[in-house]
Amino acid sequence: MSLYNFPMKAHVYVTLKRTVLDAQGQTIANSLRRLHHPAVTDVRQGKYFVLTLEDSLAHDAAKSEVERIASEVLTNPVIEEFTYTLEN
Amino acid sequence: MSLYNFPMKAHVYVTLKRTVLDAQGQTIANSLRRLHHPAVTDVRQGKYFVLTLEDSLAHDAAKSEVERIASEVLTNPVIEEFTYTLEN
Repeated sequence: MSLYNFPMKAHVYVTLKRTVLDAQGQTIANSLRRLHHPAVTDVRQGKYFVLTLEDSLAHDAAKSEVERIASEVLTNPVIEEFTYTLEN
Repeated sequence: MSLYNFPMKAHVYVTLKRTVLDAQGQTIANSLRRLHHPAVTDVRQGKYFVLTLEDSLAHDAAKSEVERIASEVLTNPVIEEFTYTLEN
């Protein structure tokens, strides 16, 4: 890896589905109200992953690999959904 | 709130500082190798928050409010750092 060859990174965002109660997020929203931040009407909490990928991986291969990892390993498909971005 | 007036949302991403060991991320990276995803060389895990803000809030006020909430409530400044985006 040369100095000018930054590794490819994938950012994966996993959140509870809209229909699933987010108790932790509601607790944070309530705390914010008590802490005098009334402008926040709702909070949803999720997980955020930064995956560093091998340099040799082509963009398309990286995309399908990240999708597979996100859907099979990082997300519980019963209650969660994910989005991701690839950064090169 | 009319149908055409979507509430403003802030996306806050909290991650461990680069210098802090991310044991959970390393565990995920090891699991991925065992699960035959060798293209992933590193994983960092963080938290992701979606804050829904009051409609009446101006963009600048929203920005400073989100920065205050992220730095004072959502982030432990000793070991974590945050970034955020505002979406209207």
